[in-house]
Amino acid sequence: MKATVTVELKASVLDPQGKAIQHSLSSLGFGGVEDVRAGKLFRIVLADSGQTREEIETQVRQMCERLLANTVIEKFSYTLEE
Amino acid sequence: MKATVTVELKASVLDPQGKAIQHSLSSLGFGGVEDVRAGKLFRIVLADSGQTREEIETQVRQMCERLLANTVIEKFSYTLEE
Repeated sequence: MKATVTVELKASVLDPQGKAIQHSLSSLGFGGVEDVRAGKLFRIVLADSGQTREEIETQVRQMCERLLANTVIEKFSYTLEE
Repeated sequence: MKATVTVELKASVLDPQGKAIQHSLSSLGFGGVEDVRAGKLFRIVLADSGQTREEIETQVRQMCERLLANTVIEKFSYTLEE
């Protein structure tokens, strides 16, 4: 089972990295860039241990809450595929 | 138009950040994590300037090649949505 996790700053949190990228894109001549937000992506390969999909979802959610995301300022989402 | 860009290390390139996360997950008691790869995600909001979808795709691809990704060691992908 493969899990793809995305972690992004909440909309209310300033994103200086995104702003820097936005300005760099403008400097390079790319017009019309209204906003850029930067985030993180994790591709996790999980061993097939006979768990149900619900158990795996719970595990991935706990991984996000305990390590991958700072839930005070970040939100996360994930998708699972065989 | 919104573009979502993902930038990831090519499969042949070592990912020490991913390995560190894999070990941290094991230390936290998450068993069965076979591999972790870390990547970047960018959400870009583009002004509606009457460009065709093909022109926007070309622009986003150029953004990736010129700024967002180091194509020597990284691969990128993107999706567009209205």
